[in-house]
Amino acid sequence: MERLGFIGLGIMGKPMALNLLRAGFPLTVHSRSADPVAELEGAGAAAADSPAAVAGASDIVVTMLPDTPDVEQVLLGDSGVAEGARDGALVIDMSTIDPEATRRFASKLGEQGVAMLDAPVSGGEAGAIEGSLAIMVGGPEGSFERALPVLQTVGKSVVHVGPSGAGQVTKACNQLIAGATVEAVAEALVLAARAGVDPAKVREALLGGFAGSRILEVHGRRMLAGDFAPGFKARLHRKDARIVLETARRLGVPVPSFEAVADALDRLVESGGGELDHSALVTLLERESGTSLRSPGRS
Amino acid sequence: MERLGFIGLGIMGKPMALNLLRAGFPLTVHSRSADPVAELEGAGAAAADSPAAVAGASDIVVTMLPDTPDVEQVLLGDSGVAEGARDGALVIDMSTIDPEATRRFASKLGEQGVAMLDAPVSGGEAGAIEGSLAIMVGGPEGSFERALPVLQTVGKSVVHVGPSGAGQVTKACNQLIAGATVEAVAEALVLAARAGVDPAKVREALLGGFAGSRILEVHGRRMLAGDFAPGFKARLHRKDARIVLETARRLGVPVPSFEAVADALDRLVESGGGELDHSALVTLLERESGTSLRSPGRS
Repeated sequence: MERLGFIGLGIMGKPMALNLLRAGFPLTVHSRSADPVAELEGAGAAAADSPAAVAGASDIVVTMLPDTPDVEQVLLGDSGVAEGARDGALVIDMSTIDPEATRRFASKLGEQGVAMLDAPVSGGEAGAIEGSLAIMVGGPEGSFERALPVLQTVGKSVVHVGPSGAGQVTKACNQLIAGATVEAVAEALVLAARAGVDPAKVREALLGGFAGSRILEVHGRRMLAGDFAPGFKARLHRKDARIVLETARRLGVPVPSFEAVADALDRLVESGGGELDHSALVTLLERESGTSLRSPGRS
Repeated sequence: MERLGFIGLGIMGKPMALNLLRAGFPLTVHSRSADPVAELEGAGAAAADSPAAVAGASDIVVTMLPDTPDVEQVLLGDSGVAEGARDGALVIDMSTIDPEATRRFASKLGEQGVAMLDAPVSGGEAGAIEGSLAIMVGGPEGSFERALPVLQTVGKSVVHVGPSGAGQVTKACNQLIAGATVEAVAEALVLAARAGVDPAKVREALLGGFAGSRILEVHGRRMLAGDFAPGFKARLHRKDARIVLETARRLGVPVPSFEAVADALDRLVESGGGELDHSALVTLLERESGTSLRSPGRS
Protein backbone atom coordinates (compact mmCIF):
# COMPACT_ATOMS: atom_id res chain seq x y z
CA MET A 1 0.00 0.00 0.00
CA GLU A 2 1.44 3.38 -0.93
CA ARG A 3 2.23 5.85 1.84
CA LEU A 4 -0.12 8.84 1.70
CA GLY A 5 0.28 12.44 2.71
CA PHE A 6 -2.72 14.74 3.21
CA ILE A 7 -2.47 18.53 3.38
CA GLY A 8 -5.49 20.67 4.29
CA LEU A 9 -7.76 19.27 7.01
CA GLY A 10 -10.73 21.63 6.64
CA ILE A 11 -14.45 20.84 6.43
CA MET A 12 -13.82 18.61 3.39
CA GLY A 13 -10.24 17.47 3.98
CA LYS A 14 -10.60 16.14 7.52
CA PRO A 15 -13.33 13.55 6.82
CA MET A 16 -11.58 12.54 3.57
CA ALA A 17 -8.30 11.97 5.45
CA LEU A 18 -10.14 9.97 8.13
CA ASN A 19 -11.69 7.76 5.43
CA LEU A 20 -8.24 7.09 3.93
CA LEU A 21 -6.87 6.24 7.37
CA ARG A 22 -9.76 3.85 8.07
CA ALA A 23 -9.13 2.16 4.71
CA GLY A 24 -5.64 1.28 5.97
CA PHE A 25 -3.41 3.76 4.15
CA PRO A 26 -0.33 4.84 6.15
CA LEU A 27 -0.99 8.58 6.48
CA THR A 28 1.05 11.71 7.25
CA VAL A 29 -0.92 14.95 7.62
CA HIS A 30 -0.36 18.69 7.77
CA SER A 31 -2.80 21.57 8.22
CA ARG A 32 -2.79 25.20 9.35
CA SER A 33 -5.07 24.54 12.33
CA ALA A 34 -3.88 22.35 15.20
CA ASP A 35 -7.19 20.74 16.21
CA PRO A 36 -7.84 18.56 13.14
CA VAL A 37 -4.16 17.52 13.12
CA ALA A 38 -4.52 16.35 16.72
CA GLU A 39 -7.73 14.48 15.81
CA LEU A 40 -6.00 12.70 12.91
CA GLU A 41 -3.03 11.84 15.15
CA GLY A 42 -5.45 10.39 17.67
CA ALA A 43 -6.87 8.22 14.88
CA GLY A 44 -3.42 6.89 13.95
CA ALA A 45 -1.92 9.37 11.47
CA ALA A 46 1.54 10.91 11.73
CA ALA A 47 1.86 14.71 11.73
CA ALA A 48 4.48 16.66 9.78
CA ASP A 49 5.30 20.34 10.32
CA SER A 50 5.48 21.40 6.67
CA PRO A 51 4.22 20.34 3.22
CA ALA A 52 7.85 19.46 2.37
CA ALA A 53 8.00 17.12 5.37
CA VAL A 54 4.71 15.48 4.33
CA ALA A 55 6.11 14.94 0.84
CA GLY A 56 9.32 13.48 2.28
CA ALA A 57 7.31 10.81 4.10
CA SER A 58 4.87 9.98 1.28
CA ASP A 59 4.54 8.30 -2.13
CA ILE A 60 1.28 10.13 -2.92
CA VAL A 61 0.38 13.57 -1.54
CA VAL A 62 -3.27 14.70 -1.52
CA THR A 63 -4.04 18.42 -1.18
CA MET A 64 -7.47 19.86 -0.28
CA LEU A 65 -7.16 23.63 0.04
CA PRO A 66 -9.42 26.69 -0.27
CA ASP A 67 -8.12 28.51 -3.36
CA THR A 68 -5.49 28.79 -6.10
CA PRO A 69 -2.92 30.83 -4.08
CA ASP A 70 -3.10 28.28 -1.22
CA VAL A 71 -2.34 25.43 -3.61
CA GLU A 72 0.53 27.38 -5.19
CA GLN A 73 2.01 28.10 -1.75
CA VAL A 74 1.69 24.50 -0.53
CA LEU A 75 3.06 22.94 -3.71
CA LEU A 76 5.71 25.43 -4.86
CA GLY A 77 6.32 27.85 -1.94
CA ASP A 78 8.92 27.74 0.85
CA SER A 79 8.97 24.31 2.50
CA GLY A 80 6.43 23.25 -0.13
CA VAL A 81 5.71 19.81 -1.52
CA ALA A 82 8.15 20.36 -4.39
CA GLU A 83 11.03 20.77 -1.91
CA GLY A 84 10.39 17.46 -0.19
CA ALA A 85 8.96 15.25 -2.94
CA ARG A 86 11.02 12.40 -4.34
CA ASP A 87 11.31 11.49 -8.01
CA GLY A 88 8.29 9.35 -8.88
CA ALA A 89 5.98 10.93 -6.31
CA LEU A 90 2.36 11.75 -7.24
CA VAL A 91 0.39 14.83 -6.17
CA ILE A 92 -3.43 14.67 -6.26
CA ASP A 93 -4.88 18.15 -5.87
CA MET A 94 -8.55 17.81 -4.92
CA SER A 95 -9.08 21.56 -4.33
CA THR A 96 -11.25 23.58 -6.73
CA ILE A 97 -8.89 26.05 -8.41
CA ASP A 98 -8.17 27.77 -11.71
CA PRO A 99 -7.63 25.27 -14.58
CA GLU A 100 -4.84 27.34 -16.15
CA ALA A 101 -2.92 27.60 -12.86
CA THR A 102 -3.39 23.83 -12.40
CA ARG A 103 -1.61 23.16 -15.71
CA ARG A 104 1.23 25.48 -14.65
CA PHE A 105 1.66 23.70 -11.29
CA ALA A 106 1.60 20.28 -12.98
CA SER A 107 4.22 21.41 -15.46
CA LYS A 108 6.53 22.78 -12.70
CA LEU A 109 6.25 19.56 -10.68
CA GLY A 110 6.78 17.50 -13.82
CA GLU A 111 10.18 19.17 -14.33
CA GLN A 112 11.41 17.40 -11.18
CA GLY A 113 9.79 14.05 -11.92
CA VAL A 114 6.67 14.56 -9.79
CA ALA A 115 3.34 13.78 -11.47
CA MET A 116 0.17 15.70 -10.66
CA LEU A 117 -3.55 15.06 -11.08
CA ASP A 118 -6.30 17.62 -10.66
CA ALA A 119 -9.21 15.85 -8.98
CA PRO A 120 -11.79 18.34 -7.70
CA VAL A 121 -14.92 16.95 -6.08
CA SER A 122 -18.65 17.54 -5.88
CA GLY A 123 -20.88 16.38 -3.05
CA GLY A 124 -20.07 18.70 -0.14
CA GLU A 125 -19.35 17.88 3.49
CA ALA A 126 -21.91 15.04 3.53
CA GLY A 127 -20.24 13.42 0.53
CA ALA A 128 -16.82 13.81 2.15
CA ILE A 129 -18.00 12.15 5.37
CA GLU A 130 -19.79 9.30 3.56
CA GLY A 131 -16.98 8.79 1.04
CA SER A 132 -19.53 9.35 -1.73
CA LEU A 133 -17.98 12.31 -3.57
CA ALA A 134 -18.15 12.71 -7.36
CA ILE A 135 -14.56 13.19 -8.55
CA MET A 136 -13.54 14.71 -11.91
CA VAL A 137 -9.96 13.87 -12.77
CA GLY A 138 -7.49 15.50 -15.16
CA GLY A 139 -3.97 14.26 -15.87
CA PRO A 140 -1.98 11.35 -17.39
CA GLU A 141 -3.69 7.96 -17.66
CA GLY A 142 -0.93 6.16 -15.72
CA SER A 143 -1.22 8.56 -12.79
CA PHE A 144 -4.99 8.14 -12.86
CA GLU A 145 -4.65 4.33 -12.57
CA ARG A 146 -2.19 4.75 -9.71
CA ALA A 147 -4.53 7.17 -7.90
CA LEU A 148 -7.67 5.04 -8.28
CA PRO A 149 -7.41 3.14 -4.96
CA VAL A 150 -7.14 6.49 -3.17
CA LEU A 151 -9.91 8.20 -5.14
CA GLN A 152 -12.30 5.26 -4.84
CA THR A 153 -11.86 5.38 -1.06
CA VAL A 154 -13.15 8.96 -0.83
CA GLY A 155 -15.50 9.00 -3.82
CA LYS A 156 -18.29 7.00 -5.43
CA SER A 157 -18.18 8.34 -9.00
CA VAL A 158 -14.61 8.78 -10.32
CA VAL A 159 -14.34 9.91 -13.96
CA HIS A 160 -11.09 10.54 -15.86
CA VAL A 161 -12.15 13.41 -18.10
CA GLY A 162 -8.88 14.28 -19.86
CA PRO A 163 -5.35 15.71 -19.53
CA SER A 164 -4.05 18.09 -16.86
CA GLY A 165 -6.58 20.83 -16.08
CA ALA A 166 -9.55 18.86 -17.47
CA GLY A 167 -10.77 18.01 -13.98
CA GLN A 168 -10.82 21.70 -13.01
CA VAL A 169 -12.58 22.63 -16.26
CA THR A 170 -15.23 20.01 -15.50
CA LYS A 171 -15.64 21.32 -11.96
CA ALA A 172 -16.08 24.83 -13.36
CA CYS A 173 -18.83 23.44 -15.63
CA ASN A 174 -20.41 21.79 -12.58
CA GLN A 175 -20.40 25.06 -10.64
CA LEU A 176 -21.81 26.94 -13.64
CA ILE A 177 -24.79 24.59 -13.98
CA ALA A 178 -25.34 24.25 -10.22
CA GLY A 179 -25.27 28.03 -9.69
CA ALA A 180 -27.56 28.71 -12.62
CA THR A 181 -30.05 26.11 -11.43
CA VAL A 182 -30.10 27.43 -7.85
CA GLU A 183 -30.72 30.96 -9.18
CA ALA A 184 -33.45 29.78 -11.59
CA VAL A 185 -35.25 27.86 -8.84
CA ALA A 186 -35.04 30.98 -6.64
CA GLU A 187 -36.43 33.23 -9.40
CA ALA A 188 -39.28 30.80 -10.09
CA LEU A 189 -40.32 30.31 -6.47
CA VAL A 190 -40.29 34.06 -5.74
CA LEU A 191 -42.28 34.70 -8.92
CA ALA A 192 -44.87 32.15 -7.78
CA ALA A 193 -45.06 33.57 -4.25
CA ARG A 194 -45.41 37.14 -5.52
CA ALA A 195 -48.24 35.99 -7.81
CA GLY A 196 -50.00 34.59 -4.75
CA VAL A 197 -49.39 30.94 -5.65
CA ASP A 198 -48.06 28.66 -2.89
CA PRO A 199 -44.39 28.08 -3.83
CA ALA A 200 -44.40 24.73 -2.01
CA LYS A 201 -47.11 23.49 -4.39
CA VAL A 202 -45.20 24.85 -7.37
CA ARG A 203 -42.08 22.96 -6.28
CA GLU A 204 -44.18 19.80 -5.88
CA ALA A 205 -45.85 20.18 -9.29
CA LEU A 206 -42.54 20.87 -11.04
CA LEU A 207 -40.53 18.07 -9.44
CA GLY A 208 -42.37 15.48 -11.54
CA GLY A 209 -41.73 17.23 -14.85
CA PHE A 210 -39.01 18.45 -17.12
CA ALA A 211 -37.89 21.24 -14.78
CA GLY A 212 -37.17 18.69 -12.06
CA SER A 213 -33.67 18.37 -10.60
CA ARG A 214 -31.91 17.49 -7.37
CA ILE A 215 -31.42 21.23 -6.84
CA LEU A 216 -35.16 21.96 -7.12
CA GLU A 217 -35.69 19.19 -4.60
CA VAL A 218 -32.95 20.00 -2.06
CA HIS A 219 -32.40 23.75 -2.47
CA GLY A 220 -36.09 24.34 -3.16
CA ARG A 221 -36.82 22.82 0.25
CA ARG A 222 -34.16 25.00 1.94
CA MET A 223 -35.57 28.12 0.29
CA LEU A 224 -39.13 27.32 1.36
CA ALA A 225 -37.97 26.71 4.94
CA GLY A 226 -35.69 29.77 4.96
CA ASP A 227 -32.98 27.42 6.28
CA PHE A 228 -29.62 28.66 4.96
CA ALA A 229 -27.23 26.74 7.21
CA PRO A 230 -24.53 25.49 4.79
CA GLY A 231 -24.36 23.20 2.83
CA PHE A 232 -22.16 24.98 0.37
CA LYS A 233 -21.21 28.49 1.42
CA ALA A 234 -22.07 31.38 -0.88
CA ARG A 235 -18.53 32.80 -0.61
CA LEU A 236 -17.08 29.53 -1.94
CA HIS A 237 -19.51 29.46 -4.83
CA ARG A 238 -18.55 33.08 -5.51
CA LYS A 239 -14.88 32.04 -5.64
CA ASP A 240 -15.81 29.26 -8.09
CA ALA A 241 -17.95 31.68 -10.11
CA ARG A 242 -14.87 33.85 -10.61
CA ILE A 243 -12.98 30.82 -11.92
CA VAL A 244 -15.85 30.17 -14.36
CA LEU A 245 -15.88 33.78 -15.57
CA GLU A 246 -12.10 34.01 -15.88
CA THR A 247 -11.95 30.76 -17.83
CA ALA A 248 -14.82 31.82 -20.09
CA ARG A 249 -13.24 35.23 -20.78
CA ARG A 250 -9.83 33.74 -21.47
CA LEU A 251 -11.38 31.33 -24.00
CA GLY A 252 -13.87 33.78 -25.49
CA VAL A 253 -16.93 31.74 -24.54
CA PRO A 254 -20.07 33.77 -23.78
CA VAL A 255 -21.83 32.73 -20.56
CA PRO A 256 -24.63 35.32 -20.45
CA SER A 257 -26.94 33.58 -18.01
CA PHE A 258 -24.09 32.72 -15.65
CA GLU A 259 -22.91 36.36 -15.62
CA ALA A 260 -26.18 37.20 -13.88
CA VAL A 261 -25.68 34.36 -11.40
CA ALA A 262 -22.13 35.49 -10.60
CA ASP A 263 -23.40 39.02 -10.07
CA ALA A 264 -26.06 37.75 -7.67
CA LEU A 265 -23.42 35.77 -5.73
CA ASP A 266 -21.32 38.95 -5.48
CA ARG A 267 -24.26 40.88 -4.10
CA LEU A 268 -25.15 38.13 -1.63
CA VAL A 269 -21.59 37.99 -0.26
CA GLU A 270 -21.22 41.78 -0.19
CA SER A 271 -24.46 42.14 1.75
CA GLY A 272 -23.12 39.83 4.45
CA GLY A 273 -24.41 36.46 3.28
CA GLY A 274 -21.08 34.82 2.47
CA GLU A 275 -21.30 32.24 5.25
CA LEU A 276 -24.85 31.21 4.29
CA ASP A 277 -25.71 28.34 1.95
CA HIS A 278 -25.77 29.46 -1.69
CA SER A 279 -29.54 28.83 -1.76
CA ALA A 280 -29.71 32.16 0.16
CA LEU A 281 -29.59 33.71 -3.33
CA VAL A 282 -33.36 33.61 -2.93
CA THR A 283 -33.19 36.26 -0.17
CA LEU A 284 -31.95 38.89 -2.65
CA LEU A 285 -35.03 38.30 -4.81
CA GLU A 286 -37.39 38.24 -1.83
CA ARG A 287 -35.99 41.57 -0.66
CA GLU A 288 -36.06 43.22 -4.08
CA SER A 289 -39.62 42.12 -4.83
CA GLY A 290 -40.99 42.74 -1.33
CA THR A 291 -42.30 39.23 -0.86
CA SER A 292 -41.43 36.14 1.15
CA LEU A 293 -41.69 32.44 0.39
CA ARG A 294 -43.10 32.01 3.93
CA SER A 295 -45.98 34.45 3.29
CA PRO A 296 -46.76 34.52 -0.44
CA GLY A 297 -48.23 37.65 -1.99
CA ARG A 298 -47.42 41.28 -1.39
CA SER A 299 -45.70 41.92 1.94
CA MET B 1 -69.74 9.90 -18.42
CA GLU B 2 -69.74 13.61 -19.27
CA ARG B 3 -69.80 14.63 -22.92
CA LEU B 4 -66.51 16.23 -23.91
CA GLY B 5 -65.61 18.84 -26.49
CA PHE B 6 -62.03 19.35 -27.68
CA ILE B 7 -60.84 22.44 -29.56
CA GLY B 8 -57.34 22.63 -31.05
CA LEU B 9 -56.03 19.40 -32.63
CA GLY B 10 -52.37 20.35 -33.09
CA ILE B 11 -49.22 18.42 -32.18
CA MET B 12 -50.33 18.23 -28.55
CA GLY B 13 -54.11 18.38 -28.89
CA LYS B 14 -54.61 15.57 -31.39
CA PRO B 15 -53.03 12.76 -29.36
CA MET B 16 -54.71 14.07 -26.18
CA ALA B 17 -58.12 13.99 -27.90
CA LEU B 18 -57.43 10.48 -29.19
CA ASN B 19 -56.58 9.32 -25.65
CA LEU B 20 -59.87 10.76 -24.35
CA LEU B 21 -61.79 9.03 -27.13
CA ARG B 22 -60.09 5.69 -26.41
CA ALA B 23 -60.98 6.09 -22.72
CA GLY B 24 -64.65 6.10 -23.77
CA PHE B 25 -65.60 9.78 -23.48
CA PRO B 26 -68.24 10.90 -26.04
CA LEU B 27 -66.25 13.53 -27.96
CA THR B 28 -67.00 16.48 -30.25
CA VAL B 29 -64.02 18.20 -31.86
CA HIS B 30 -63.14 21.38 -33.73
CA SER B 31 -59.85 22.58 -35.21
CA ARG B 32 -58.60 25.03 -37.84
CA SER B 33 -57.03 22.28 -39.97
CA ALA B 34 -59.23 19.66 -41.62
CA ASP B 35 -56.87 16.67 -41.51
CA PRO B 36 -56.82 16.03 -37.74
CA VAL B 37 -60.58 16.58 -37.58
CA ALA B 38 -61.03 13.86 -40.21
CA GLU B 39 -58.69 11.58 -38.28
CA LEU B 40 -60.66 12.08 -35.07
CA GLU B 41 -63.95 11.51 -36.91
CA GLY B 42 -62.50 8.28 -38.27
CA ALA B 43 -61.74 7.24 -34.70
CA GLY B 44 -65.33 7.88 -33.58
CA ALA B 45 -65.56 11.57 -32.65
CA ALA B 46 -68.21 14.00 -33.91
CA ALA B 47 -67.07 17.20 -35.66
CA ALA B 48 -68.56 20.64 -35.05
CA ASP B 49 -67.98 23.68 -37.25
CA SER B 50 -67.40 26.24 -34.51
CA PRO B 51 -66.32 26.48 -30.86
CA ALA B 52 -69.91 27.51 -30.05
CA ALA B 53 -71.21 24.32 -31.65
CA VAL B 54 -68.71 22.23 -29.71
CA ALA B 55 -69.87 23.89 -26.50
CA GLY B 56 -73.52 23.28 -27.40
CA ALA B 57 -72.85 19.53 -27.63
CA SER B 58 -70.64 19.21 -24.52
CA ASP B 59 -70.65 19.27 -20.72
CA ILE B 60 -66.89 19.88 -20.54
CA VAL B 61 -64.88 21.71 -23.23
CA VAL B 62 -61.09 21.25 -23.41
CA THR B 63 -59.00 23.82 -25.32
CA MET B 64 -55.40 23.28 -26.44
CA LEU B 65 -54.29 26.31 -28.47
CA PRO B 66 -51.02 28.08 -29.35
CA ASP B 67 -51.24 31.43 -27.56
CA THR B 68 -53.29 33.89 -25.50
CA PRO B 69 -55.11 35.59 -28.45
CA ASP B 70 -56.15 32.17 -29.83
CA VAL B 71 -57.71 31.22 -26.50
CA GLU B 72 -59.47 34.60 -26.24
CA GLN B 73 -60.89 34.19 -29.76
CA VAL B 74 -62.06 30.60 -29.18
CA LEU B 75 -63.63 31.30 -25.79
CA LEU B 76 -65.01 34.82 -26.13
CA GLY B 77 -64.94 35.68 -29.87
CA ASP B 78 -67.62 35.30 -32.54
CA SER B 79 -69.14 31.81 -32.47
CA GLY B 80 -66.94 31.17 -29.44
CA VAL B 81 -67.44 28.76 -26.57
CA ALA B 82 -69.23 31.44 -24.50
CA GLU B 83 -71.93 31.71 -27.15
CA GLY B 84 -72.76 28.02 -27.13
CA ALA B 85 -72.03 26.93 -23.56
CA ARG B 86 -74.87 26.05 -21.22
CA ASP B 87 -75.11 27.09 -17.57
CA GLY B 88 -73.05 24.60 -15.55
CA ALA B 89 -70.57 23.84 -18.33
CA LEU B 90 -66.86 23.56 -17.53
CA VAL B 91 -63.99 24.83 -19.69
CA ILE B 92 -60.52 23.30 -19.18
CA ASP B 93 -57.90 25.40 -20.95
CA MET B 94 -54.73 23.32 -21.31
CA SER B 95 -52.89 25.89 -23.46
CA THR B 96 -49.91 27.80 -22.05
CA ILE B 97 -51.00 31.44 -21.89
CA ASP B 98 -50.70 34.60 -19.81
CA PRO B 99 -51.88 34.07 -16.18
CA GLU B 100 -53.51 37.51 -15.99
CA ALA B 101 -55.49 36.94 -19.20
CA THR B 102 -56.52 33.52 -17.88
CA ARG B 103 -58.12 35.14 -14.80
CA ARG B 104 -59.95 37.60 -17.05
CA PHE B 105 -61.34 34.81 -19.28
CA ALA B 106 -62.41 32.79 -16.23
CA SER B 107 -64.17 35.81 -14.78
CA LYS B 108 -66.04 36.52 -18.06
CA LEU B 109 -67.18 32.91 -18.39
CA GLY B 110 -68.14 32.88 -14.72
CA GLU B 111 -70.60 35.72 -15.35
CA GLN B 112 -72.68 33.34 -17.45
CA GLY B 113 -72.40 30.36 -15.13
CA VAL B 114 -69.54 28.62 -16.96
CA ALA B 115 -66.60 27.49 -14.80
CA MET B 116 -63.02 27.47 -16.08
CA LEU B 117 -59.81 25.76 -15.06
CA ASP B 118 -56.35 26.61 -16.34
CA ALA B 119 -54.48 23.32 -16.74
CA PRO B 120 -51.30 23.78 -18.75
CA VAL B 121 -49.08 20.76 -19.27
CA SER B 122 -45.45 19.75 -19.38
CA GLY B 123 -44.08 16.70 -21.16
CA GLY B 124 -44.19 17.55 -24.84
CA GLU B 125 -45.53 15.52 -27.75
CA ALA B 126 -44.22 12.25 -26.29
CA GLY B 127 -46.10 12.91 -23.04
CA ALA B 128 -49.26 13.78 -24.98
CA ILE B 129 -49.09 10.53 -26.98
CA GLU B 130 -48.34 8.38 -23.92
CA GLY B 131 -50.89 10.17 -21.72
CA SER B 132 -48.09 10.91 -19.26
CA LEU B 133 -48.23 14.71 -19.11
CA ALA B 134 -47.55 16.69 -15.93
CA ILE B 135 -50.59 18.97 -15.42
CA MET B 136 -50.65 22.09 -13.21
CA VAL B 137 -54.19 23.15 -12.41
CA GLY B 138 -55.62 26.47 -11.27
CA GLY B 139 -59.29 27.12 -10.41
CA PRO B 140 -62.05 26.21 -7.95
CA GLU B 141 -61.74 22.95 -6.01
CA GLY B 142 -65.14 21.66 -7.18
CA SER B 143 -64.25 22.15 -10.84
CA PHE B 144 -60.92 20.42 -10.24
CA GLU B 145 -62.68 17.37 -8.79
CA ARG B 146 -65.06 17.33 -11.75
CA ALA B 147 -62.17 17.56 -14.22
CA LEU B 148 -60.03 14.84 -12.64
CA PRO B 149 -61.30 11.89 -14.75
CA VAL B 150 -60.45 13.90 -17.88
CA LEU B 151 -57.06 15.14 -16.63
CA GLN B 152 -56.00 11.72 -15.35
CA THR B 153 -56.71 10.27 -18.78
CA VAL B 154 -54.19 12.57 -20.49
CA GLY B 155 -51.71 13.09 -17.62
CA LYS B 156 -49.75 11.16 -15.04
CA SER B 157 -49.04 13.89 -12.49
CA VAL B 158 -52.04 16.18 -11.85
CA VAL B 159 -51.53 18.84 -9.16
CA HIS B 160 -54.11 21.43 -8.07
CA VAL B 161 -51.84 24.39 -7.28
CA GLY B 162 -54.36 27.11 -6.41
CA PRO B 163 -57.11 29.44 -7.68
CA SER B 164 -57.67 30.63 -11.26
CA GLY B 165 -54.37 31.53 -12.95
CA ALA B 166 -52.24 29.47 -10.54
CA GLY B 167 -51.78 26.74 -13.15
CA GLN B 168 -50.43 29.27 -15.65
CA VAL B 169 -48.14 30.84 -13.03
CA THR B 170 -46.78 27.38 -12.27
CA LYS B 171 -46.23 26.68 -15.97
CA ALA B 172 -44.37 30.00 -16.27
CA CYS B 173 -42.13 28.85 -13.38
CA ASN B 174 -41.59 25.55 -15.19
CA GLN B 175 -40.55 27.34 -18.38
CA LEU B 176 -38.27 29.66 -16.43
CA ILE B 177 -36.38 26.80 -14.79
CA ALA B 178 -36.34 24.63 -17.92
CA GLY B 179 -35.04 27.47 -20.11
CA ALA B 180 -32.39 28.48 -17.59
CA THR B 181 -31.19 24.90 -17.25
CA VAL B 182 -30.98 24.34 -21.01
CA GLU B 183 -28.95 27.55 -21.37
CA ALA B 184 -26.66 26.66 -18.43
CA VAL B 185 -25.99 23.19 -19.87
CA ALA B 186 -25.21 24.80 -23.23
CA GLU B 187 -22.82 27.34 -21.67
CA ALA B 188 -21.05 24.61 -19.68
CA LEU B 189 -20.61 22.19 -22.59
CA VAL B 190 -19.30 24.90 -24.92
CA LEU B 191 -16.91 26.12 -22.20
CA ALA B 192 -15.60 22.56 -21.83
CA ALA B 193 -15.22 22.04 -25.58
CA ARG B 194 -13.44 25.36 -26.03
CA ALA B 195 -11.04 24.41 -23.22
CA GLY B 196 -10.25 21.25 -25.13
CA VAL B 197 -12.09 18.91 -22.76
CA ASP B 198 -14.44 16.32 -24.29
CA PRO B 199 -17.95 17.66 -23.55
CA ALA B 200 -19.38 14.11 -23.63
CA LYS B 201 -17.12 13.16 -20.71
CA VAL B 202 -18.09 16.34 -18.87
CA ARG B 203 -21.77 15.47 -19.27
CA GLU B 204 -21.08 11.96 -17.99
CA ALA B 205 -19.07 13.18 -14.99
CA LEU B 206 -21.69 15.78 -14.04
CA LEU B 207 -24.75 13.54 -14.39
CA GLY B 208 -23.81 11.69 -11.18
CA GLY B 209 -23.45 14.85 -9.10
CA PHE B 210 -25.28 17.89 -7.89
CA ALA B 211 -25.49 19.51 -11.34
CA GLY B 212 -27.37 16.50 -12.67
CA SER B 213 -30.85 16.89 -14.16
CA ARG B 214 -33.10 15.38 -16.79
CA ILE B 215 -32.21 18.37 -18.99
CA LEU B 216 -28.46 17.66 -18.71
CA GLU B 217 -29.24 14.09 -19.66
CA VAL B 218 -31.69 14.63 -22.54
CA HIS B 219 -30.75 18.06 -23.91
CA GLY B 220 -27.07 17.46 -23.22
CA ARG B 221 -27.27 14.41 -25.49
CA ARG B 222 -29.07 16.42 -28.22
CA MET B 223 -26.44 19.16 -28.05
CA LEU B 224 -23.56 16.69 -28.28
CA ALA B 225 -25.20 15.03 -31.30
CA GLY B 226 -26.16 18.35 -32.91
CA ASP B 227 -29.66 16.88 -33.28
CA PHE B 228 -32.16 19.71 -32.99
CA ALA B 229 -35.30 18.04 -34.34
CA PRO B 230 -38.04 19.13 -31.90
CA GLY B 231 -38.85 18.23 -29.11
CA PHE B 232 -39.98 21.63 -27.95
CA LYS B 233 -39.65 24.36 -30.56
CA ALA B 234 -37.55 27.41 -29.74
CA ARG B 235 -40.31 29.77 -30.95
CA LEU B 236 -42.75 28.26 -28.44
CA HIS B 237 -40.26 28.60 -25.62
CA ARG B 238 -39.73 32.20 -26.71
CA LYS B 239 -43.49 32.78 -26.48
CA ASP B 240 -43.44 31.30 -22.97
CA ALA B 241 -40.37 33.36 -22.07
CA ARG B 242 -42.34 36.50 -22.88
CA ILE B 243 -45.10 35.35 -20.53
CA VAL B 244 -42.48 34.84 -17.81
CA LEU B 245 -40.97 38.30 -18.36
CA GLU B 246 -44.35 40.06 -18.54
CA THR B 247 -45.52 38.35 -15.37
CA ALA B 248 -42.26 39.16 -13.58
CA ARG B 249 -42.38 42.81 -14.64
CA ARG B 250 -46.01 43.21 -13.66
CA LEU B 251 -45.26 41.82 -10.21
CA GLY B 252 -41.89 43.55 -9.75
CA VAL B 253 -39.93 40.30 -9.39
CA PRO B 254 -36.35 40.43 -10.69
CA VAL B 255 -35.42 37.45 -12.91
CA PRO B 256 -31.88 38.46 -13.89
CA SER B 257 -30.63 35.08 -15.08
CA PHE B 258 -33.80 34.39 -17.05
CA GLU B 259 -33.52 37.77 -18.81
CA ALA B 260 -30.35 36.42 -20.43
CA VAL B 261 -32.12 33.20 -21.41
CA ALA B 262 -35.04 35.09 -22.96
CA ASP B 263 -32.58 37.24 -24.91
CA ALA B 264 -30.84 34.12 -26.21
CA LEU B 265 -34.20 32.63 -27.29
CA ASP B 266 -34.96 35.89 -29.13
CA ARG B 267 -31.64 35.72 -30.96
CA LEU B 268 -32.10 32.05 -31.82
CA VAL B 269 -35.55 32.67 -33.31
CA GLU B 270 -34.48 35.84 -35.11
CA SER B 271 -31.56 34.02 -36.71
CA GLY B 272 -33.92 31.45 -38.18
CA GLY B 273 -33.87 28.75 -35.49
CA GLY B 274 -37.48 29.04 -34.35
CA GLU B 275 -38.51 25.61 -35.63
CA LEU B 276 -35.55 23.87 -33.98
CA ASP B 277 -35.62 22.30 -30.54
CA HIS B 278 -34.79 24.83 -27.80
CA SER B 279 -31.55 22.92 -27.12
CA ALA B 280 -30.32 24.68 -30.30
CA LEU B 281 -29.52 27.56 -27.91
CA VAL B 282 -26.11 25.89 -27.86
CA THR B 283 -25.54 26.84 -31.52
CA LEU B 284 -25.45 30.56 -30.63
CA LEU B 285 -22.63 29.89 -28.15
CA GLU B 286 -20.77 27.62 -30.55
CA ARG B 287 -20.91 30.32 -33.23
CA GLU B 288 -19.91 33.17 -30.91
CA SER B 289 -16.97 31.27 -29.43
CA GLY B 290 -15.80 29.68 -32.68
CA THR B 291 -15.96 26.13 -31.40
CA SER B 292 -18.12 23.05 -31.87
CA LEU B 293 -19.20 20.30 -29.50
CA ARG B 294 -18.39 17.83 -32.30
CA SER B 295 -14.74 19.00 -32.55
CA PRO B 296 -13.67 20.45 -29.21
CA GLY B 297 -10.96 23.12 -29.12
CA ARG B 298 -10.40 26.10 -31.37
CA SER B 299 -12.04 25.78 -34.76
